[in-house]
Amino acid sequence: MVPFVGVADLAGIVEAVGLEAFLRGLAERIEADFERWEEFDKSPRYASHVPDGVIELMPAADREYFAFKQVNGHPGNTAAGLQTVAALGVLTRVDTGYPVLVSEMTLLTALRTAAMSALAARYLARPASRVLAMIGQGAQSEFQAIAFKALLGITRVQAWDIDPAASRKFARNLAESGIEVVIAPSADEAVIGADIVTTVTADRVNARILSANMTGAGLHINAVGGDCPGKTELAPEILQRGRVFVEYTPQTRIEGEIQQMPDDFEVTELWSVFSGKTSGRTSDEEITIFDSVGFGIEDFSALRYLYDLLPEHAPHTELDLIAQPQDPRDLFGLLSPRLHATA
Amino acid sequence: MVPFVGVADLAGIVEAVGLEAFLRGLAERIEADFERWEEFDKSPRYASHVPDGVIELMPAADREYFAFKQVNGHPGNTAAGLQTVAALGVLTRVDTGYPVLVSEMTLLTALRTAAMSALAARYLARPASRVLAMIGQGAQSEFQAIAFKALLGITRVQAWDIDPAASRKFARNLAESGIEVVIAPSADEAVIGADIVTTVTADRVNARILSANMTGAGLHINAVGGDCPGKTELAPEILQRGRVFVEYTPQTRIEGEIQQMPDDFEVTELWSVFSGKTSGRTSDEEITIFDSVGFGIEDFSALRYLYDLLPEHAPHTELDLIAQPQDPRDLFGLLSPRLHATA
Repeated sequence: MVPFVGVADLAGIVEAVGLEAFLRGLAERIEADFERWEEFDKSPRYASHVPDGVIELMPAADREYFAFKQVNGHPGNTAAGLQTVAALGVLTRVDTGYPVLVSEMTLLTALRTAAMSALAARYLARPASRVLAMIGQGAQSEFQAIAFKALLGITRVQAWDIDPAASRKFARNLAESGIEVVIAPSADEAVIGADIVTTVTADRVNARILSANMTGAGLHINAVGGDCPGKTELAPEILQRGRVFVEYTPQTRIEGEIQQMPDDFEVTELWSVFSGKTSGRTSDEEITIFDSVGFGIEDFSALRYLYDLLPEHAPHTELDLIAQPQDPRDLFGLLSPRLHATA
Repeated sequence: MVPFVGVADLAGIVEAVGLEAFLRGLAERIEADFERWEEFDKSPRYASHVPDGVIELMPAADREYFAFKQVNGHPGNTAAGLQTVAALGVLTRVDTGYPVLVSEMTLLTALRTAAMSALAARYLARPASRVLAMIGQGAQSEFQAIAFKALLGITRVQAWDIDPAASRKFARNLAESGIEVVIAPSADEAVIGADIVTTVTADRVNARILSANMTGAGLHINAVGGDCPGKTELAPEILQRGRVFVEYTPQTRIEGEIQQMPDDFEVTELWSVFSGKTSGRTSDEEITIFDSVGFGIEDFSALRYLYDLLPEHAPHTELDLIAQPQDPRDLFGLLSPRLHATA
């Protein structure tokens, strides 16, 4: 039998661990996995582009476990009252090829994306950063805000969304989080005085959410929303003015903000920063940009982290997923006793 | 909620439908899907080669559904009392990106592989074929035999395995199937008088299970076991003497028997035969070879077939896989009420 962690199960586990503690623990796991980057079997995700969105398979493996996530991106879903993202993941032992965990990954992806954003910002934002501008108050926004509070000590979020109702939802959800939330009248005004800007919009277009004149010295930009071909959030000039950090270059050149730039545009992979091979931010004046698209190793880390939590926090279903006849060559034996009548 | 079909669930559905009827229905579905080949989003499977085997992701999609299977191949598992293959699959709606079915696919893969083998043989074997030689009596062997009975009217199977216990298991399982099973003392003797030879061995080596002098005029060879780099079953001379049919050329050149041949070695894709664009067998003397490796569309067909059976035969678990807040942008709302205490 294989444990299954559903949405309510995961919510219960996060509640038991504590959201900030969960995000810190997940960030530590991602950081440790990125530090042993060379040990992973990596590849760009497999993307099936469909009329209304994209469906992707994201694999990653080390010597012990193979993990993958299926995740879609359907911006039109929101209008239909559905999630733009509905993901599931599987963790499998490499030595036997047997799955050991099946999990929902819609919530888990929001958590790992927020943990990754805050982790990157710990290396790329100014240490004194306290004010976060958040452009876009969709499904991921609160997770991002809490992660920046938990990992960086962000105390104030200046929020703007094209839909004021989304911003109000955001403010309502964070009312008791200890974060001061201010709803700004425009994206430009949200960015004024911000140490960090997170762009996390869902529109599948090449938008210009952040313009160059909004980008002051010392700013760290956490660009989360631009994550597939034809979907970007930043003006190219911003990418030229700052240092751009990525997860996995071959994938980000296809899916990230840098899809707007030439193929030889210089980027730095975060694993080399986390492992001390390369510097992160080098001065208080530098503009840093995390061109976040999400990478399989982050899902690997999230599934491994969740798997390690199960013995202590285990509200889950067991799935009859593994055919296990007494004689492994006798798969048919699972059927035949019943089938003598019908074969 | 998303339906989950486990091993016992699937065994129950096959029992209710009848094994031969299930295999015929599945073969019809595969045939119909191959006939609309151009409508599918196709790609070679993603393979992660690990020390003890391989873990693969096999996607395929049409305009309505995206299907994928995770499947491993660990030949050493048998010695440890485990299945060499432990697979799971997910069927997802293309318009929303939401999964609609999660299923075990160890049993289902054995069923679809057998259905595909028999379907191909209906186009490639001599119509009067009644005797099947089966080299290898592992987990897939009985499914293959029943499929050839159900779709071609095979009445006799001449079985050989390097391990006589496997052959006895095979004969025992088929004792009431209506198939005459004869255990041969050698591979060569198993092939004598056979109309069709199925090779379905598990050893991950370049074996020579079938030699050229065992391959008489008019024979159809169903080569199932050679399905990954470094794993073949046929002598290259056999491939030169017969016409070779494949599922999806780019994948088969990597994984199939033809990995032994030059990249321009001529093959025929079965979809073109099923759809009447190309001829299958053209004479009683021709040697035909199905270089079977398994392709994502077969898994797509199997999951769609199973999905359509659920309303009538639905012993399954419902999975809490889809996060569904009232406001789709309020994913955090699934957590926050409980987290005010802990955030």
